[in-house]
Amino acid sequence: MAQGMEAGLDRFFKPRSIAVIGASREAGKVGNAVCENLLRGTTKEILHARGFGGAIYPVNPRADEIMGLKCYSSIKDVPGEVDLAVVVVPARFVPTIMEEMGEKGTRAAVIISAGFSESGEEGARLEREVLRIASKQGIRIIGPNCLGVIRTHNHLNASFADMMPEPGPISFVSQSGALCTAVIQYSFEESIGFSNFVSIGNKADVDDADLLEYFASDEETQAIALYIESLKDGRRFMEAAKKTVPEKPVVILKSGRTEAGARATSSHTGSLSGSDAAYEAAFRQTGALRVYTIMELFDAAKALAYQPPAKGDRIAVVTNAGGPGVMAADQLYTRGLRLAELPKDVVKELDSFLPPAWSRSNPVDILGDATPERYGETLRVLSGCEEVDGIVVILTPQVMTRPMETARIVVESVRGVRKPVTAAWVGLSGRPSEDYLDSEGIPELTFPERAADAMAALVHRGRVLRRIQGGEWS
Amino acid sequence: MAQGMEAGLDRFFKPRSIAVIGASREAGKVGNAVCENLLRGTTKEILHARGFGGAIYPVNPRADEIMGLKCYSSIKDVPGEVDLAVVVVPARFVPTIMEEMGEKGTRAAVIISAGFSESGEEGARLEREVLRIASKQGIRIIGPNCLGVIRTHNHLNASFADMMPEPGPISFVSQSGALCTAVIQYSFEESIGFSNFVSIGNKADVDDADLLEYFASDEETQAIALYIESLKDGRRFMEAAKKTVPEKPVVILKSGRTEAGARATSSHTGSLSGSDAAYEAAFRQTGALRVYTIMELFDAAKALAYQPPAKGDRIAVVTNAGGPGVMAADQLYTRGLRLAELPKDVVKELDSFLPPAWSRSNPVDILGDATPERYGETLRVLSGCEEVDGIVVILTPQVMTRPMETARIVVESVRGVRKPVTAAWVGLSGRPSEDYLDSEGIPELTFPERAADAMAALVHRGRVLRRIQGGEWS
Repeated sequence: MAQGMEAGLDRFFKPRSIAVIGASREAGKVGNAVCENLLRGTTKEILHARGFGGAIYPVNPRADEIMGLKCYSSIKDVPGEVDLAVVVVPARFVPTIMEEMGEKGTRAAVIISAGFSESGEEGARLEREVLRIASKQGIRIIGPNCLGVIRTHNHLNASFADMMPEPGPISFVSQSGALCTAVIQYSFEESIGFSNFVSIGNKADVDDADLLEYFASDEETQAIALYIESLKDGRRFMEAAKKTVPEKPVVILKSGRTEAGARATSSHTGSLSGSDAAYEAAFRQTGALRVYTIMELFDAAKALAYQPPAKGDRIAVVTNAGGPGVMAADQLYTRGLRLAELPKDVVKELDSFLPPAWSRSNPVDILGDATPERYGETLRVLSGCEEVDGIVVILTPQVMTRPMETARIVVESVRGVRKPVTAAWVGLSGRPSEDYLDSEGIPELTFPERAADAMAALVHRGRVLRRIQGGEWS
Repeated sequence: MAQGMEAGLDRFFKPRSIAVIGASREAGKVGNAVCENLLRGTTKEILHARGFGGAIYPVNPRADEIMGLKCYSSIKDVPGEVDLAVVVVPARFVPTIMEEMGEKGTRAAVIISAGFSESGEEGARLEREVLRIASKQGIRIIGPNCLGVIRTHNHLNASFADMMPEPGPISFVSQSGALCTAVIQYSFEESIGFSNFVSIGNKADVDDADLLEYFASDEETQAIALYIESLKDGRRFMEAAKKTVPEKPVVILKSGRTEAGARATSSHTGSLSGSDAAYEAAFRQTGALRVYTIMELFDAAKALAYQPPAKGDRIAVVTNAGGPGVMAADQLYTRGLRLAELPKDVVKELDSFLPPAWSRSNPVDILGDATPERYGETLRVLSGCEEVDGIVVILTPQVMTRPMETARIVVESVRGVRKPVTAAWVGLSGRPSEDYLDSEGIPELTFPERAADAMAALVHRGRVLRRIQGGEWS
């Protein structure tokens, strides 16, 4: 066993050697996809795809070699140490595999195989048996019935997802494997990058609480996003969330929130999901942010990962079109935030360079012919204004609009300013400028409403931190 | 003047000849973009772009020829009739232009030029003057201060938008020009097609009410989407909406709905936007559907344009993954809809071909290894079930998922069924299958929550029609 791995879940995320139990040469098989993902980072043909740097040991008694790697009949035959085993054999073989892992000294298993408690009483019995052996042998388990584990910064793709997400600051934990694959695809469209990406399946052993605590001190994680269908131990989850939130922002999408959804959850996971009001109250107590749609989950996580918390709820909106500015104002208000009142001297300073027809109030409408420079100067003034706690920047396509130059100047103007900024480059075909904003840490969210929601997440975070720090900021 | 054009707004949408007053040879000028759009359908280099088929007359006293077309010094010099004039000259020249149009017998003007009531008192005076002449000469006006008018089915792009939207069944009317350009871009990503696309700017003459009435009987329009910042004559709007809704579904996004937004609107448009509760009540009375975000506006319009109204609120969800099914259930319930209770004989019929582990209730989870055929059979059974008023179909990427074949079989299975279907192909990289669903009239909306919202729009529509038809359906 590796030194320093005794505590925590490092074996899952920073293993030095991995065995794939149930490795396969046959394309289309899960045991084949896992090997490809470990070796190359993805099953797809992608330039510069890069695989896991440590040792990879395929295990399959019916093969000598898989993808150029020597194949072993049992994990016990592997010559070196094995920090992590990825298990894809049929459920009924898993207990034996666990015994062999114990003998080998492997202490972490990602069990991808399905056919456990999610499939009925017989599967539940098998799951208990696997847990019993794991406990005896000191093995921690992620899964069973999951997609696997990805950590981007060390190119570890111990999953059968067909793509590797881009590296980034968000750790995502999902109780739905199907959602994981969908989210990877979505993340490319929305420029969302992940540090860790975990499908936890049945949560037989390692659960949301364990992962929260682990990611709380993970140097690559800036925000944690959770998709939860049910919690087995609410108290334990709350304790973990309470410990994590002061370190890292946590965003939670809990499905089964309505009566209809809860009934559906119970049929799906076999566990009662409990009263939603109780979850709501519990989440609030921990300081985690609860959201209600997949889009909100990632919009909030993106904002929280990149931007500082807001010191208050007074927000300025800068826009080159009235309507979208009003939409942002509507949404900020709906989320309980306020439009910052601009002090007279700030209005005067803006007057000195803005054309006479500018709105002269917040939303700061700097008009359809706004140049990048006009955005820059306006943001410089608002960044320095004490009455402004955060800024939503909107750009719409007009005859004179230069999306890329404006993005560059926005990034320059707010560099080093300890106030959150979110952006909506509304329907601008110049995707490069949107990606540029994201890559420079300014979350770009396409629509004014979404940019306002993201700002609300940062105001929430500020409130939570002030509460935790006992008014240090207030 | 053309025969049969006396009534209504046909001159704007079905002109046979158009003059561009302020046409320009200089790239980057609005008068240049309008000419290109009329001639080629778009200013961008696009294969198979197609322009307006009627006569196009550039008017500019300082040019002999523009883009190969003979140029005239005044509209009065144009040899043939001119049904529609697109005006892009500076505001101060517009009164004279209106007089000349009157002499020429042109009875419709899209005034793109800005510098009217939106820019202060002097502009407001100019706008009143233009209106006075228009009224005297019998000219109807769209604008001023707008992007222009697009009708896709006759390749009419009388605007300076840099792209032509795809043809389709939605008529969109926007009080924000900036939003128009943004929406065209968005429409490509979301496969939204338009029949008419109108930027109405200051609404000096033709307003939302006129366009509602016109699109109510437009054979190319299946749904009407409105973006409104303010209404000058609420009573007139309500009358028009009441007349339109029985013919065509109407979806409204009204900004300035909150206190903060209303204050911002007033600063932006110079008109008081009135109490939002009053708007809310008025919209409800007309049977129009009010939505709150840009995304909802187009998701609802897409569903309403393609799918029949629901005869009730009992919805079935078909999915190959539990979690997304629960999310759909949550959102349906939140929108006031119900999960259909499956009768015993339907469960029995599904039992006959679904694997034993299927959910045996609604959401109908047909499991991660669901084949296209399994989707097809399930949809066939649910389509025939009297207790089901609408179906939300969800596909998530799993090892065996075949997005395109599944899309094809979904389309086949519900063909001819008079029950609405919406779909969420969650994060499937196979974009072609999403586009295929849309092209076959099944709105695809990426996430379960959005597919549920779209279904809610169809249930709303059904309720409204039943109310109108006095219980004929109930």
